[in-house]
Amino acid sequence: MNFSSRLLENAVNEFSKLPGVGQKTALRLVLHLLNQSSQEVENLSDALTRLKREIRYCKVCGNISDSEVCGVCSANKRDKSLVCIVEDTRDIMAIENTNQYNGVYHVLGGLISPMDGIGPSDLNIERLVERVKTGEIEEVILALSATMEGDTTIFYIFKKLKDLPVKISTIARGIAFGGEIEYADEITLARSIATRVPYGVES
Amino acid sequence: MNFSSRLLENAVNEFSKLPGVGQKTALRLVLHLLNQSSQEVENLSDALTRLKREIRYCKVCGNISDSEVCGVCSANKRDKSLVCIVEDTRDIMAIENTNQYNGVYHVLGGLISPMDGIGPSDLNIERLVERVKTGEIEEVILALSATMEGDTTIFYIFKKLKDLPVKISTIARGIAFGGEIEYADEITLARSIATRVPYGVES
Repeated sequence: MNFSSRLLENAVNEFSKLPGVGQKTALRLVLHLLNQSSQEVENLSDALTRLKREIRYCKVCGNISDSEVCGVCSANKRDKSLVCIVEDTRDIMAIENTNQYNGVYHVLGGLISPMDGIGPSDLNIERLVERVKTGEIEEVILALSATMEGDTTIFYIFKKLKDLPVKISTIARGIAFGGEIEYADEITLARSIATRVPYGVES
Repeated sequence: MNFSSRLLENAVNEFSKLPGVGQKTALRLVLHLLNQSSQEVENLSDALTRLKREIRYCKVCGNISDSEVCGVCSANKRDKSLVCIVEDTRDIMAIENTNQYNGVYHVLGGLISPMDGIGPSDLNIERLVERVKTGEIEEVILALSATMEGDTTIFYIFKKLKDLPVKISTIARGIAFGGEIEYADEITLARSIATRVPYGVES
């Protein structure tokens, strides 16, 4: 692109480093910001620097937090013997939105992915093993994506935990509620028939 | 959404004020930035504040510029007697990319849009009339979008300039090169037949 200003070009280049943001989108966003008040732009810019500088991770579960221990880990009414293992904070938000889960979490911070150079040591797995070794945890639920990376990570964690006195489960896979069978993919459909449950048990 | 951190929530809220960015996209972008180095985040944040603080507009044409007069207006080889009137800097970038235009520009900074509360006095139109009154301009080309707002603005500028000694033209409308006639909209097709040109004249 043919920029009339270095400042403009610089801002567009920085924006287009974000995932899913190309040069054209970046330009649209930057021109939008140029039309906003200085205060608005400062707010965005400050929010980003403060986020990066001041953000902390819960020393128990590894979730993003403003304090040393996050709200979930420090809540009295949460069941500390049940730990749900998730990839990142977005999964916690999704599970919390269901209002059905009363245990605590453990955030891995990613999934094992040799293609992206992410090995087990890059993830928050050692800390999970330590947590389980304290003996306070009765069950861990592996709530990871049903992808190659997710399955690899599940298998690795399973191997790490299988000799410890803890129950290991994974979330149920199957046809979604409201999902139509004719549109389901073959693997999910085949597995959901193979792992069928007696009627009346689920609810 | 159920944020585990105020800092995170704040950053997501600021991001989701951008056009076309919802809360989910904002969260994805913010989590991506959290995984980047502090330097990367500072770069983005600085680029935005500097852009807003230091950006200048060319005192001749109103385009975004780093100096008092922009690169196009200060170039010796550009034809100063031909002025192309555009909505914003994106249009200049598009026209410059064609490498076919040798005149200069005039940036309105928007289009007349009563629905959005934008009237002629909010646009860079008075300065255009002054430029034409100097007598140095032989022709202005109205290169505005073929929308209600574009047409209103063209009509307003035409009224302002019609008694001055300047030729006023608009860019040609018609079927795009490579465009298929069966997919063209009715208005464009009808107009392109009505305003047909003798074969061999265009190229």
